[in-house]
Amino acid sequence: MGKGRLEAFSDGVIAIIITIMVLELKVPHEPSLEALAPLWPVFLSYILSFVYIGIYWNNHHHMLHAVRHVSGGVLWANSHLLFWLSLTPFTTEWMGENHFARVPVAIYGVGLSMNAIAYTILVRVLVSSHGHDSEFAARIGSDLKGKLSLVLYISAVALSFVSPWVSLAIYFAVALIWIIPDRRFERGAA
Amino acid sequence: MGKGRLEAFSDGVIAIIITIMVLELKVPHEPSLEALAPLWPVFLSYILSFVYIGIYWNNHHHMLHAVRHVSGGVLWANSHLLFWLSLTPFTTEWMGENHFARVPVAIYGVGLSMNAIAYTILVRVLVSSHGHDSEFAARIGSDLKGKLSLVLYISAVALSFVSPWVSLAIYFAVALIWIIPDRRFERGAA
Amino acid sequence: MGKGRLEAFSDGVIAIIITIMVLELKVPHEPSLEALAPLWPVFLSYILSFVYIGIYWNNHHHMLHAVRHVSGGVLWANSHLLFWLSLTPFTTEWMGENHFARVPVAIYGVGLSMNAIAYTILVRVLVSSHGHDSEFAARIGSDLKGKLSLVLYISAVALSFVSPWVSLAIYFAVALIWIIPDRRFERGAA
Amino acid sequence: MGKGRLEAFSDGVIAIIITIMVLELKVPHEPSLEALAPLWPVFLSYILSFVYIGIYWNNHHHMLHAVRHVSGGVLWANSHLLFWLSLTPFTTEWMGENHFARVPVAIYGVGLSMNAIAYTILVRVLVSSHGHDSEFAARIGSDLKGKLSLVLYISAVALSFVSPWVSLAIYFAVALIWIIPDRRFERGAA
Repeated sequence: MGKGRLEAFSDGVIAIIITIMVLELKVPHEPSLEALAPLWPVFLSYILSFVYIGIYWNNHHHMLHAVRHVSGGVLWANSHLLFWLSLTPFTTEWMGENHFARVPVAIYGVGLSMNAIAYTILVRVLVSSHGHDSEFAARIGSDLKGKLSLVLYISAVALSFVSPWVSLAIYFAVALIWIIPDRRFERGAA
Repeated sequence: MGKGRLEAFSDGVIAIIITIMVLELKVPHEPSLEALAPLWPVFLSYILSFVYIGIYWNNHHHMLHAVRHVSGGVLWANSHLLFWLSLTPFTTEWMGENHFARVPVAIYGVGLSMNAIAYTILVRVLVSSHGHDSEFAARIGSDLKGKLSLVLYISAVALSFVSPWVSLAIYFAVALIWIIPDRRFERGAA
Repeated sequence: MGKGRLEAFSDGVIAIIITIMVLELKVPHEPSLEALAPLWPVFLSYILSFVYIGIYWNNHHHMLHAVRHVSGGVLWANSHLLFWLSLTPFTTEWMGENHFARVPVAIYGVGLSMNAIAYTILVRVLVSSHGHDSEFAARIGSDLKGKLSLVLYISAVALSFVSPWVSLAIYFAVALIWIIPDRRFERGAA
Repeated sequence: MGKGRLEAFSDGVIAIIITIMVLELKVPHEPSLEALAPLWPVFLSYILSFVYIGIYWNNHHHMLHAVRHVSGGVLWANSHLLFWLSLTPFTTEWMGENHFARVPVAIYGVGLSMNAIAYTILVRVLVSSHGHDSEFAARIGSDLKGKLSLVLYISAVALSFVSPWVSLAIYFAVALIWIIPDRRFERGAA
């Protein structure tokens, strides 16, 4: 079974997720910079989530490029990932509108953790459908960066009750780690 | 006539349907778990509809993969299916916001029934355009699962006036049956 | 220059137009059929516009299938068509929410007229870029159905001040004429 | 690495941006032309932004057509462009709803400037990944039109505090310059 439509459908869903988040930036009534300024927490949340969704699209793109065939289980693991990603506009808006209060910052981190877990499940399903001694499995390797990210997300969820700003800093730090595209697949494709 | 654009357009519409439903999850004003908790019925409805739209995309994907050619009638049968699917965000939100009250639960089931009928019409149009003795028709077979689902949806609509929770359990049960991808086409493709 | 991305972009825009219209169906607060009933004018408008956007996608699909090459002028004529199509959710909602009052029904017809004019311009640009003695130009022919539709839309706009229901009947009648896919291209492709 | 998915994802995001802006055209409550008339500033903003997003899609289409290969840096430069483009619905609505008041008109110009800078960065990353003596670099040339546009946007931002109408005229004038598709790539493709 071809992977073309899986890529097209994922591209569509991810493109919509990344774009509808801008609807959360509610236009202020007054035409002044003073009226614009209070939007900064929503805008900062938007930037963070735009980067994260961009990272997932980027890594999804790289990984699918290396995929040889797609099974029924892969379709469902992919839908499962899209489900958690689709909740990002919700967690983003809640965190932004509440100016990075503890609970919404923690829930945002829970969302990031679920995205990471769903991505790992997709990787596992793909590895097992290609075989553990396949070229695909060799390229995935130990996925140290993925495991480290999950540990950092969970730490940030816990730390949000100490200081939500520390958690936010961790979310941005992990995003920075990932902006470097996944070399495993780029090397393989080169 | 090629099927590429039919798949692309269907992917686009289905991707938007599955994603805009998240706009129904209205962000609570208070930054607390207590404020988040009352969202559970809308969230549960969202999960159910996400799974159903995912199932339709999945089966549409498998079926179109086996299609050899697309006639004008197929284009309209496909648009007819997309029309009913496009009403899912509406029935989902109404059911969730009213905490699974009788009438919205029944209307949700009417929506599922119309989806199933529209899908069956698309299957029939495809079978008749490929010929009843074609490989495509042989793979479709008797469509027992489709017929059973429709009977269960209609039962659930009727039962909603006894207990909407029984209907909801039926909706989830039918979804579970379908999460197993359509083996008819996967076997064929293997 | 290839036509693939033009088709993909048009599919994307048309898919979004046809789908976001469902956001106009505002969920009623009460969980009863009595609360659902007053939505019929918005629902009827939705059906009409879904069919029209479906017709444009369908005919666009058929016509682009026959196109051999795409010039800069074609890209702009196509964007011009998408612009007018993109106003459909607005005219649809205004007509539905005002229960088919005179002015919104007339403006809806103005929208249909602009869609038809923009489509005709796209056809003309394509014909002139393929050459008036090309196979493409031969298939387009005199475009009698297109010209008749435009006359009917303009008549319906005028008649809306006599009776908006007559105009609405004309809009549905023209849609029915077009549901029959454009035989010119289907014949050519067969 | 192929450029197909980059094009598909960009098409998806740009298609959504250009289409969701119509949601800003809020339907008036009264069914009269008098109720429709006050929408003209929002409608004019919509036209302007539709044209600009169309220009970016158009030029992106032409440029990517000439691209031979896509690196990780290109993916991120492209996402960066999509980020700034995605803010267009926000700046458009703010400018329209405030009837072209000074600050929103200036911010709209800041948005246009950021789009232009992000596009230039994408061009630079593509040139450096293809090599400065490549066919791609030769076609790009000095990008005089791009540099002139940026100077005009920045001038318009400054001039908005003298007269926002002058700024608006500049925005429309630059759009007109760009409606002529990028000949550099069209010549190359011919």
